Amino acid sequence: MRYRAQVEYDGTAYFGFQRQLNQPTIQEELEKSISRIAGEVVNIIFAGRTDSGVHAIGQVIAFQVEWTHGLRALTNAVNANLPADISIRNVEKADEDFHPRFDAKRRHYRYFIYNGPIRSPRKRLYSWHVKKELRVESMNLAAEGIIGQHDFGTFGQAPQGANTVREVFNSLWRRHGDCVQFDIEANAFLYRMVRSLVGSMKQIGEGSWTVERFNETLESGERNQAGQSAPAHGLFLMSVMY
Amino acid sequence: MRYRAQVEYDGTAYFGFQRQLNQPTIQEELEKSISRIAGEVVNIIFAGRTDSGVHAIGQVIAFQVEWTHGLRALTNAVNANLPADISIRNVEKADEDFHPRFDAKRRHYRYFIYNGPIRSPRKRLYSWHVKKELRVESMNLAAEGIIGQHDFGTFGQAPQGANTVREVFNSLWRRHGDCVQFDIEANAFLYRMVRSLVGSMKQIGEGSWTVERFNETLESGERNQAGQSAPAHGLFLMSVMY
Repeated sequence: MRYRAQVEYDGTAYFGFQRQLNQPTIQEELEKSISRIAGEVVNIIFAGRTDSGVHAIGQVIAFQVEWTHGLRALTNAVNANLPADISIRNVEKADEDFHPRFDAKRRHYRYFIYNGPIRSPRKRLYSWHVKKELRVESMNLAAEGIIGQHDFGTFGQAPQGANTVREVFNSLWRRHGDCVQFDIEANAFLYRMVRSLVGSMKQIGEGSWTVERFNETLESGERNQAGQSAPAHGLFLMSVMY
Repeated sequence: MRYRAQVEYDGTAYFGFQRQLNQPTIQEELEKSISRIAGEVVNIIFAGRTDSGVHAIGQVIAFQVEWTHGLRALTNAVNANLPADISIRNVEKADEDFHPRFDAKRRHYRYFIYNGPIRSPRKRLYSWHVKKELRVESMNLAAEGIIGQHDFGTFGQAPQGANTVREVFNSLWRRHGDCVQFDIEANAFLYRMVRSLVGSMKQIGEGSWTVERFNETLESGERNQAGQSAPAHGLFLMSVMY
């Protein structure tokens, strides 16, 4: 039987989602846990790679396992064999041909900036510390401009030279006190795209880039024209929609 | 010159605030940093001990140091010599007789419970995971009952048998989605008092204790009548008022 599940993880201790030789990864931990329950080697498929240090609330995986004790018991059994910084939830039976990556229609990422003059120990693991006060209205002029279909070659790489056009459905900065967060939804993302967009828009918020420069940079399609890249630990894969 | 400062820390890696031989503590890190800047050994005084694993947003310290470069430069110099899980802010000159503990009029603690069926990696470091849905209204009947002057001997110890009467000014549970938080302000607290109160009130919220039992337990004054003790990592010292 094929199952699907959402995965939440704190990426701090891992070299990204995808399995690597001799490095801790989320995929390896999930496969170890599910294989232990299944009593045989189980491989998982997943919606999207996340980089080293990136977190997730709603990564999506699928796997084959024979299981007769119900979904809640399966959830608990898998979680009991996972480390505390990874958990699964919303386990459901899936169609035999369900594929978390190929069937995905939208992905939602959220990026957190802690915007205050003094660093915050409590926020250090899950947000980027930016000291200078950010002008969110200016950042939103750039954010609105990327909604729709665009060639995002400036802000990320496609696998093996494939095309770099992506469709953005939602792109919005919001401030809650000293927390400035960016939500972006698209059909798919290029490698490093969210962190590259966030880094350049943060430069607008600080006043070192203009919105015009951002728009020209997007137009150029040249990867080396992008601004700085935001660090991994502020980024969360929030959900994947089918 | 005497200075005062607020200290924020993630207590995860420390054996509490107060200096101990051969164990990492917040006090030791602060004294190392300030001593390095001063070029001589500096001891700090502070508002209150926090247990191993407890966090703070607004611990208060005072220390003597000769410094001629301004408050912002002092803040930055101290923070530059502290590990990422400790920082100071709101540094001010203080009266020579200012004492963070003896002069404190009120302390505010906040306790975070994550109330959901599946454990959350992202919340694991800063909240207590309680699976059963808590009835916050019932917990608030107990919380309201402790406002005012009471003997809290049931819920904590005083140093060396001193009296266990404390005055509570505010005591309130609130739910924000799956986050259930408790705010308590008092003139002072007994050792383990907040965690002991939270543990017993959580048992009310789960339905295993009644409010009547809680009130009788408070009346008894017997430490061994208290319910369970909540774990350290959900607790934050929020602020100290003078």
